[in-house]
Amino acid sequence: MTERTEEEHSAQMRRIQAARAKMMAGKTTEKGLVIVHTGKGKGKSTAAFGMAARAIGHGMKVGIVQFVKGAMMTGESVVFAAFADQVEFKPMGEGFTWDTQDRARDIAVAREAWNEVKRMIADPAYGMVIADELNIVLRYDYLPVDEVLAALAARPAMTHVVITGRNAPDALIEAADLVTEMAQVKHPFRDGVKAQAGVEF
Amino acid sequence: MTERTEEEHSAQMRRIQAARAKMMAGKTTEKGLVIVHTGKGKGKSTAAFGMAARAIGHGMKVGIVQFVKGAMMTGESVVFAAFADQVEFKPMGEGFTWDTQDRARDIAVAREAWNEVKRMIADPAYGMVIADELNIVLRYDYLPVDEVLAALAARPAMTHVVITGRNAPDALIEAADLVTEMAQVKHPFRDGVKAQAGVEF
Repeated sequence: MTERTEEEHSAQMRRIQAARAKMMAGKTTEKGLVIVHTGKGKGKSTAAFGMAARAIGHGMKVGIVQFVKGAMMTGESVVFAAFADQVEFKPMGEGFTWDTQDRARDIAVAREAWNEVKRMIADPAYGMVIADELNIVLRYDYLPVDEVLAALAARPAMTHVVITGRNAPDALIEAADLVTEMAQVKHPFRDGVKAQAGVEF
Repeated sequence: MTERTEEEHSAQMRRIQAARAKMMAGKTTEKGLVIVHTGKGKGKSTAAFGMAARAIGHGMKVGIVQFVKGAMMTGESVVFAAFADQVEFKPMGEGFTWDTQDRARDIAVAREAWNEVKRMIADPAYGMVIADELNIVLRYDYLPVDEVLAALAARPAMTHVVITGRNAPDALIEAADLVTEMAQVKHPFRDGVKAQAGVEF
């Protein structure tokens, strides 16, 4: 326990409160954001789907396109199904690229998934569009990053776009409003624990 | 585009696939995990609530206790309400400690919220328990970390516990199975953008 008196505590908290109030007063802009979740840690897609849940709760229409089908989503899909009129969920990928072993097919599938994302981004009916694992596709050069940046730049003013996956390209980070890196501090796979319901899928 | 031939691509992907298959074959353990989301970046609570959605989809009962009520959750709460028989959501905190300016009350509220978490953790009916912003309370010494560690150690074998908040104590990181640090790369508050529906709450 700290040795500060109650009065010292209150005084410090009043200072923090005043500083925060001043900071928040300067924040008046509302706009659609480009949000990127990258890094080697867990939580990139999970946080994106958590944002989808938020957006659904606010009555928004949410589009979700998965570029890598192997990324498991059995748990979330039950919840999204309960809000089927608000959520359009498209698991487009064919699986991890090391499972397909066919670059030409991977490129074609990436292109098809991207066309869905482009359509959703261009349609102001969608309040949020999630391009799950798009960064993987960009990393493998299956899709030109310039084409992604052009679609983001041309989107309706209030559309949020969330892009996940390791190795986000620098140009995308540059264009984004909000970028979080999920860093792995500790992972139970190292101890022989397998992927489990509710945690990984 | 890379200059590799299709055959080189396939060969490399087969090597990656074989290495992954070998790695995954060693992962056979199932157990309840202690999961910590910490760091200064966004997505700590969002990813925890995304895990709640997953767990709900798998039919689990999920308990969620919020230690800081100011952490907004209006969006998620609509979704959780649709699964009210599976989700027990307790927003216990009184608001940020700089708003209450009353340490004694903050400690009492933290204790009350912790008692709820302890009850949920001890009850094997809960497949997942989320202690949102518990790290904040530990940081301010409003609750002894040893008491938290003891409850975690005594939990049922298959219960997942997710703890969020900046500044996770070292002892908690040590005890956890899975720790992710959400690092802030870029944040739109810097550009005067305010907290928005679907993104922050």
